[in-house]
Amino acid sequence: MSHSGLNMSRRIRRTPYTDRVETHGVRGFSVVNHMLLPKAFAPSVEQDYWHLRENVQIWDVSCQRQVEIKGPDAAKLVQLMTPRDIRKAHFGQGIYVPLIDEKAGMLNDPVLQKLDENLFWFSIADSDILLWAKGLAYGLHLDVEINEPDVSPLAVQGPKSSELMASLVGDAIYDLPYFGFAKFEILGTSQIIARSGYSKQGGYEIYLNGSQLGSDLWDLIWEAGQPHSITPGCPNLIERIEAGLMSYGNEFTNLNNPFECRFDHLCYFGDEIDYVGKDALLKIAQESPKQKICGIKFGGGKTPPCGKPFSVTSEDKSVIGQVTSAIYSPRLECNVGMSMILQSHWKSGSPVVVHTPDGLSRDGIVASFPL
Amino acid sequence: MSHSGLNMSRRIRRTPYTDRVETHGVRGFSVVNHMLLPKAFAPSVEQDYWHLRENVQIWDVSCQRQVEIKGPDAAKLVQLMTPRDIRKAHFGQGIYVPLIDEKAGMLNDPVLQKLDENLFWFSIADSDILLWAKGLAYGLHLDVEINEPDVSPLAVQGPKSSELMASLVGDAIYDLPYFGFAKFEILGTSQIIARSGYSKQGGYEIYLNGSQLGSDLWDLIWEAGQPHSITPGCPNLIERIEAGLMSYGNEFTNLNNPFECRFDHLCYFGDEIDYVGKDALLKIAQESPKQKICGIKFGGGKTPPCGKPFSVTSEDKSVIGQVTSAIYSPRLECNVGMSMILQSHWKSGSPVVVHTPDGLSRDGIVASFPL
Repeated sequence: MSHSGLNMSRRIRRTPYTDRVETHGVRGFSVVNHMLLPKAFAPSVEQDYWHLRENVQIWDVSCQRQVEIKGPDAAKLVQLMTPRDIRKAHFGQGIYVPLIDEKAGMLNDPVLQKLDENLFWFSIADSDILLWAKGLAYGLHLDVEINEPDVSPLAVQGPKSSELMASLVGDAIYDLPYFGFAKFEILGTSQIIARSGYSKQGGYEIYLNGSQLGSDLWDLIWEAGQPHSITPGCPNLIERIEAGLMSYGNEFTNLNNPFECRFDHLCYFGDEIDYVGKDALLKIAQESPKQKICGIKFGGGKTPPCGKPFSVTSEDKSVIGQVTSAIYSPRLECNVGMSMILQSHWKSGSPVVVHTPDGLSRDGIVASFPL
Repeated sequence: MSHSGLNMSRRIRRTPYTDRVETHGVRGFSVVNHMLLPKAFAPSVEQDYWHLRENVQIWDVSCQRQVEIKGPDAAKLVQLMTPRDIRKAHFGQGIYVPLIDEKAGMLNDPVLQKLDENLFWFSIADSDILLWAKGLAYGLHLDVEINEPDVSPLAVQGPKSSELMASLVGDAIYDLPYFGFAKFEILGTSQIIARSGYSKQGGYEIYLNGSQLGSDLWDLIWEAGQPHSITPGCPNLIERIEAGLMSYGNEFTNLNNPFECRFDHLCYFGDEIDYVGKDALLKIAQESPKQKICGIKFGGGKTPPCGKPFSVTSEDKSVIGQVTSAIYSPRLECNVGMSMILQSHWKSGSPVVVHTPDGLSRDGIVASFPL
């Protein structure tokens, strides 16, 4: 039980799948939303990467906790929390929603599922949105119940995931659009399955409602995956960066606004709806844009891990940004990264220099996603 | 940089002291408030325990983040957030304050420092109180600024800590009452130092304002500690349990109320002040108490780690509680734990049986703190 590096305690919550993940020899955990997220299984992130691109993997992503907003004022509160117009949200289609504070600083970037007229789930990244929602609801006297339900997403990711899922729940799985979801019968229960996941290799997430079913669900998928060379996996840093999948806390924080995160198209500025931070966001929209998140490729041999941002300079040595996530890509045969880059250099192809903590200055270029 | 078990990334923030902690050979990290907390240094938690009781240690507790509430409505918001009467709070004396939600569920148990009439710091346990405070302030239209300042507590803990601190800032350090704080000159800057810390062996916390001073402060204390056999350390599970120091997320969550956490004496029920959850708390106060956090001692050889709560039963085999933290104490020569126990068995000396995941049923007794 004592995994290399991380104390086990109730505070850092186990998931319904942790027992299975341990049986499969997980090589360590990260922590997201006070919950364990497996870190690696195969001897290297590179082996996991190649396998994910070619086969199918099962991922314990229970840490994508749901914040449930329920009640007569649920839609009102949900709309207050995001600059995205949620009036078209409906059962069957998840939408990606930036959440911002009163200064238009990013608080999270969940997927929103509207389950019923008065029932919504935010599937959150790493911040306690439950507390933000509860604070707003209390202060504004909204008639809502806000909870974290016993829902623990299990992801099936990779090009063979559709075939695997079809063998379990039937061909209707092929009809789901990207971010679409529906209820399917599995383990004798009705569960929400979405065509989604934290990779761009195709895949599904089962929003398992009922912790006690965790091991059974894992075993069912594991068995069904045998013909498809299934392995246990987890979000893969190489694949994530190449795909341009951002991570709250890494690529952006509450010091960044939605424009810097390329969420311009998700922000509504008309008169028909209001939300927290709208005035601040409008003001920022009227200023000229300063910086945004860009891809980056750089050389100089395998980069050290990006535990704190790497400084990025232009050829004339002025600082023009920072790398926030980085790793070596065995496919592209260079280092790949995500970076916040000033407007002067955010055009793809701009030459830059990346400064890594090993003291090296590495030549690179700004690049668009996917890398 | 790649520590056994825990991915290094910007999301799990390094502290101003992480460089030094790594130089000292830290054996892994935990994560609190999205920030690294060292897990162990000596070959065993037991060695760390004995050293802490006899000497002095330096701890990186930067993860005790400050939530700063500032502005004309600061005192109003702070009072809304806690059932404790904060009218007597004043500069120089920190107070321990339960924070609750509208249902009287525990959200955190920080130490509150009033720095000025309109300026407060909550030194928080592991939940995003910043978001709760911001949500309340927005909804209630309060005139406050809420931020996480660049303040990173460094703790000096153990019986020799007073002597060490006096050698750095003078004998005035002896005048601080428990939880008292004052400004002291250190490294040519003025910093808040409190007589506090997450052990009962005596000690101080330097609320370092200014990350860039981290390594210098560490080195200064390290040098001054040489005559006192200083070692790097961290909150010690054996000492914490014996002392009865609770941990949010372990001993209690938002499903527990302040009475269950023994905070009865911190709850104000008069007419002069109001706070979130007061009605719910009053209602609970009128019911007969159900359960509360108790010490527990049990045998059967060294307990496995308490990654999820251990069930506790009475001698007639009915479930009467759960152990939420546990470890073997080499001093008491038995296992020690913290547990939530039903009223029928919370009297010290009550015989109980603890069921550990290795399949053993271990005889134990309920005990009062310190163990």
